[in-house]
Amino acid sequence: MSNCIVAQSGGPTSVINATVAGVVKANQLNPIYEHVYGGLNGIEGILAERFVDLTNMSEEENHILQQTPSSALGSCRYKLKRDNVEDFQKLMDVMDKHDVETLFYIGGNDSMDTVAALSEYAANNGITDKRFVGCPKTVDNDLMHIDHCPGFASAAKFIAMTALQTWLDVNVYPASRKEVFILETMGRDAGWLAASACLSEKIDVLILPEQPFDKDVFLKRVSECVEARSKCYVVVSEGARYADGTYISAGESKNDLFGHAVLGGAGEALKSMIIDSGVAPRCKVQDLSTAQRSHASEQSYVDRAEAYRLGQSAHMHSADKSFTGQMVALRRREGESYDVEYFTIAASEVANYVKNFPEEWILPEYRGISEEAFAYLRPLIDGTPYIIYKNGLPAHVEPYYLR
Amino acid sequence: MSNCIVAQSGGPTSVINATVAGVVKANQLNPIYEHVYGGLNGIEGILAERFVDLTNMSEEENHILQQTPSSALGSCRYKLKRDNVEDFQKLMDVMDKHDVETLFYIGGNDSMDTVAALSEYAANNGITDKRFVGCPKTVDNDLMHIDHCPGFASAAKFIAMTALQTWLDVNVYPASRKEVFILETMGRDAGWLAASACLSEKIDVLILPEQPFDKDVFLKRVSECVEARSKCYVVVSEGARYADGTYISAGESKNDLFGHAVLGGAGEALKSMIIDSGVAPRCKVQDLSTAQRSHASEQSYVDRAEAYRLGQSAHMHSADKSFTGQMVALRRREGESYDVEYFTIAASEVANYVKNFPEEWILPEYRGISEEAFAYLRPLIDGTPYIIYKNGLPAHVEPYYLR
Repeated sequence: MSNCIVAQSGGPTSVINATVAGVVKANQLNPIYEHVYGGLNGIEGILAERFVDLTNMSEEENHILQQTPSSALGSCRYKLKRDNVEDFQKLMDVMDKHDVETLFYIGGNDSMDTVAALSEYAANNGITDKRFVGCPKTVDNDLMHIDHCPGFASAAKFIAMTALQTWLDVNVYPASRKEVFILETMGRDAGWLAASACLSEKIDVLILPEQPFDKDVFLKRVSECVEARSKCYVVVSEGARYADGTYISAGESKNDLFGHAVLGGAGEALKSMIIDSGVAPRCKVQDLSTAQRSHASEQSYVDRAEAYRLGQSAHMHSADKSFTGQMVALRRREGESYDVEYFTIAASEVANYVKNFPEEWILPEYRGISEEAFAYLRPLIDGTPYIIYKNGLPAHVEPYYLR
Repeated sequence: MSNCIVAQSGGPTSVINATVAGVVKANQLNPIYEHVYGGLNGIEGILAERFVDLTNMSEEENHILQQTPSSALGSCRYKLKRDNVEDFQKLMDVMDKHDVETLFYIGGNDSMDTVAALSEYAANNGITDKRFVGCPKTVDNDLMHIDHCPGFASAAKFIAMTALQTWLDVNVYPASRKEVFILETMGRDAGWLAASACLSEKIDVLILPEQPFDKDVFLKRVSECVEARSKCYVVVSEGARYADGTYISAGESKNDLFGHAVLGGAGEALKSMIIDSGVAPRCKVQDLSTAQRSHASEQSYVDRAEAYRLGQSAHMHSADKSFTGQMVALRRREGESYDVEYFTIAASEVANYVKNFPEEWILPEYRGISEEAFAYLRPLIDGTPYIIYKNGLPAHVEPYYLR
């Protein structure tokens, strides 16, 4: 029996470890591989032969791993370039040396490109004893062909929750105090995360990268809200941009005169517009930053369960010796209640594409999202898994890459 | 039987409504008052006779109210000035008109000053049929005489949790990537919230307002961490300041040349120092802002239970017709396991003082907090109450002030 490696790449999510846990548990239940190695820091660490043996992980560690946010195996931003034959061959040699048949690579767009490139290299060089399998993850929810990406729903739930909670906070002062609150979310190219704030049902103004930003329309809408009830709650994606593609975070400030870029992101840029125009005298910005992809103590149950099952699914499919260059995925079943089915697709079909938030789901004048969008998003944030606590905080697995 | 009013003031916390729920439930169990009115937007709304009747609140609403963050009755920043006889008399008249005997006021320093001032006014004017009772709350944990303030522990728990979760995130890239992460917490004058991040046991550098900031010592410490393991995790209180009292957020930037203030707070100021000095090429700031006092879906069980019981305690004590100008409080019992006892103290003893984080609990060179500090903090974040969910998000009571 040969071995497999599971590794993680790109930005972490709060359920990316659940996929590792799924691969490990699947092999305990149905041993296809003698050893399940964790490759540390993605391709970069695998090339340096940095492994940890996960084969006999205990039930308890498996559970705690699933509730531990961020990549417990470490990550990398290292991208295998197709003309870098040396790295490709080095990786094949490392796999040979450790008798590794299958590499499971958990990641987003770039990682699926790596999976595709590795399987192409193997095919082109007559290497038939190795398989390269992609497992999807990204808080951005921008992968093609998959209904939604593991990691997205937990971040969406935290964002919706925080929108509700901070909306309750910003409204407490009397109507004499006119005030705008701006919540900034991740999403450089796709507006999925920002849109998910609408699940709070408290959002007055929503600005997504998919919709060219128009300052006048924005200020008019904020002004209407402030006039109507003295407060206005705005959600903006970090990637919000003008029609010409310029990010709104890139300019537009009193200080432009001196040639200084505005510090901060899209939220701070909107704040400047609001204050400068006199639409409201007070404006507060909350940038959710790293916390939104790390908040694992309130993972979506659906998200974590699906991330785990995708790991199991990848392991199961890899019993087929011809299964390579593929990504495991899920699609939503038709019907009244939420359900998904698992399938597989060529990693090359996923790599280097971006799935935007559908334009037809965006309401005009920054008024939020359509009922179709709500119907898509709502089931994804359902439930919270049982979390094991230790000393008052969620228990976590110490990162394998630091051991 | 006459009536009472319960009202909230100052900045919200995630358990400030639990104290309202405690007053309401106590009166259902032991009816001292015919009606329990909620005064909307604190003293400001009471003067305008804006009330809601909470007397017969259902068990379900009581439970959901306890898990709803921010002041469900609204808040105000309106301060009764002692020379403003008109407002004082107006308040007495409103109480007479609605047959109100007791005003429960939930708040911090300023609110306790209001409680003291109102009871003094009543005493000086021969008004003997009214009682003014303070209930403590503040995320800042800076009230004197009370072991800890309701609201603090839940914010502390969220901060410690977020510190752990973002620490796991910032470490995932290989050692070749040198990086500093800065978490900024609330705490203009007292360092309790920032210090609570140490409960994560992951903090490399901690900067509190109680300790004069020394840039050289700070950069030396960060540099040591980055050299040792390529990453450094810094926590800073928004109120961090130099020996002369200047906030570090107030200056120190390349742009000073042009007379521009630095945008952003203490975290951004530290980031500038780190980047400008070349100690690390990458630095990310997460400002927890409003989320840290609003995150009620993971309240500390201890915190919520104590906030509730302080409401009950205030109600119970107010059966005594001479009980006025007092604040209900709690002190920690001696012993192995955590326990508290409830007591009362003159509101004037609490008003206008600040309890700082003890200097003897601060380790030198920004290395964090002492074992005594851990022993003080640890029991406070224990447990998470049962949270009722609706549509995937924590259920909440719609603000009474918006109905």
